Amino acid sequence: MKWYLVASLLTVLTSSQGILTTLSQSNGKYKYDYATVPFLAEVFKLIVSSVFLWRECKKSPPAKMTTDWKSVRLFPIPSIIYLIHNNVQFATLMYVDTSTYQIMGNLKIVTTGILFRLFLKKKLSNLQWMAIVLLAVGTTTSQVKGCGEASCDSLFSAPIQGYMLGILSACLSALAGVYTEFLMKKNNDSLYWQNVQLYTFGAIFNMARLVLDDFRGGFEKGPWWQRLFNGYSVTTWMVVLNLGSTGLLVSWLMKYADNIVKVYSTSMAMLLTMVLSVFLFSFKPTVQLFLGIIVCMMSLHMYFAPPNMLVDLPSTVRTDPESLVNVPVDRKTDS
Amino acid sequence: MKWYLVASLLTVLTSSQGILTTLSQSNGKYKYDYATVPFLAEVFKLIVSSVFLWRECKKSPPAKMTTDWKSVRLFPIPSIIYLIHNNVQFATLMYVDTSTYQIMGNLKIVTTGILFRLFLKKKLSNLQWMAIVLLAVGTTTSQVKGCGEASCDSLFSAPIQGYMLGILSACLSALAGVYTEFLMKKNNDSLYWQNVQLYTFGAIFNMARLVLDDFRGGFEKGPWWQRLFNGYSVTTWMVVLNLGSTGLLVSWLMKYADNIVKVYSTSMAMLLTMVLSVFLFSFKPTVQLFLGIIVCMMSLHMYFAPPNMLVDLPSTVRTDPESLVNVPVDRKTDS
Repeated sequence: MKWYLVASLLTVLTSSQGILTTLSQSNGKYKYDYATVPFLAEVFKLIVSSVFLWRECKKSPPAKMTTDWKSVRLFPIPSIIYLIHNNVQFATLMYVDTSTYQIMGNLKIVTTGILFRLFLKKKLSNLQWMAIVLLAVGTTTSQVKGCGEASCDSLFSAPIQGYMLGILSACLSALAGVYTEFLMKKNNDSLYWQNVQLYTFGAIFNMARLVLDDFRGGFEKGPWWQRLFNGYSVTTWMVVLNLGSTGLLVSWLMKYADNIVKVYSTSMAMLLTMVLSVFLFSFKPTVQLFLGIIVCMMSLHMYFAPPNMLVDLPSTVRTDPESLVNVPVDRKTDS
Repeated sequence: MKWYLVASLLTVLTSSQGILTTLSQSNGKYKYDYATVPFLAEVFKLIVSSVFLWRECKKSPPAKMTTDWKSVRLFPIPSIIYLIHNNVQFATLMYVDTSTYQIMGNLKIVTTGILFRLFLKKKLSNLQWMAIVLLAVGTTTSQVKGCGEASCDSLFSAPIQGYMLGILSACLSALAGVYTEFLMKKNNDSLYWQNVQLYTFGAIFNMARLVLDDFRGGFEKGPWWQRLFNGYSVTTWMVVLNLGSTGLLVSWLMKYADNIVKVYSTSMAMLLTMVLSVFLFSFKPTVQLFLGIIVCMMSLHMYFAPPNMLVDLPSTVRTDPESLVNVPVDRKTDS
């Protein structure tokens, strides 16, 4: 399977995630406990990966699996980072409003690029760095509040702690992604075995959260397993399946593509959601949405197009083919 | 003189043009007849160019001048295009408000690129085309009205004629620039001789406008030459000198650089004016101004940086220096 097909599918599914979540609400409220959704999605991913792993194990050669504790113990780390991230996010929202938080969230694109370079030692060309900055600028542009909308000028007026926490949040989010990529690529283990480890810990951490919520609420509504499917509609199940599927696609991308592909995929999904919202929920399209889309499309092309498509290579190269027989091929793959 | 020094000077002067014009007003109104400013600027440019031409003629070899009517008759054409442009602008403003007109004005950047390619046969790389589009998007982004500002949503609600006229206006503006570049580069005539021809016609057309205004006003305030300097302050004279100087710099760029350099120069000036206004006139900085500046800076770098600075050239080129001795130099100049 080609990485760009997986990335496109991820874009479509992530985008429908936003739409489905909105559709699953009644009068802007959740009828079900939203915390049960990521738990069930983890369970779904775990089941799917287990089935695939089982099928792989029957084949010859069987799936490659590293089962010593030294390797397995690394798999809860992404879940732990996400747990810290959720708490930082909660703290950030005490200082800044949600729209400022959303705007700051685009920093994640740039921090992912930086950590990707630092920890995974991947080299990016200047043009690719510029593309990453432009992607962050483009997504931010599309989110800038139009005139006449409420909650003005809040962006420059939050206390400094809010911005620091926002930056920390962006770093943690990037770290989780980069760490997952490291996990998936560090050996030739079967993707499904790696998934089983990731999602087992994911399910445990999500279950812990449900238990914690029960303790916090003093078991007023009964234990979580008794009210797990309370208020679930067909749409809610679609949200669960969708969230699970996007998770599986992200795992695939982390192993066979990289974090930057994932970042582009989810950024495009954000724009697609906004465009679809114009039609589905009759949102008013803004100039900044239009401008943001152009910037993101340029960024996409800058990052992924082969260099010889973007710049005119020196004419001396073309007029002197003899000495350069093996260059054109390399150029195409050097993007 | 290096083109980028001239371009930077043009940016600074164009930017101070906006500031000076604002400072020359009292209570938001002009105390003087604004139509006299471009006329006097044309006269100033004509005098300066004549002096330089006279000095050049005394040297040996004397300034190269083509004086046959076949060549001279081309020089009023830019003035004629500007005249048509002014009328189209006036018509456009009957359909759209000024802020929509300002936003649409950025289309000029893209139309200049297109006419530059079509009429002057200059080749641009894909990356340079993308840079031009990004420059237009960046300048537009910086101008998007912040939330809470008046005149909302007017951008998508103007009648279709407004947009058509806006596009026509952008084409005419680009045509005037591209035609001037053609004039300046079509032969090796002295820049000052070309300027003298341009500005003589420019002065005549501007004078005609003053006469026409007099006729329209029924000579109520007396003929234009009697009230030419009415209400002029030191700042007004600075506006005139500034406008004249920027005109001379543009002529220089048209002969020794090109329209795209000019477009970058004036776009940067627009952003600089907005940044200076934050400090000088305590304008509120918006997120979109900040985002627009980043996009324009990226665009600048994309357009002018040498390709080998932007993309990693294939490693085979570096490891095989023998066969490529003359390539690196060409690459630097191939931008």
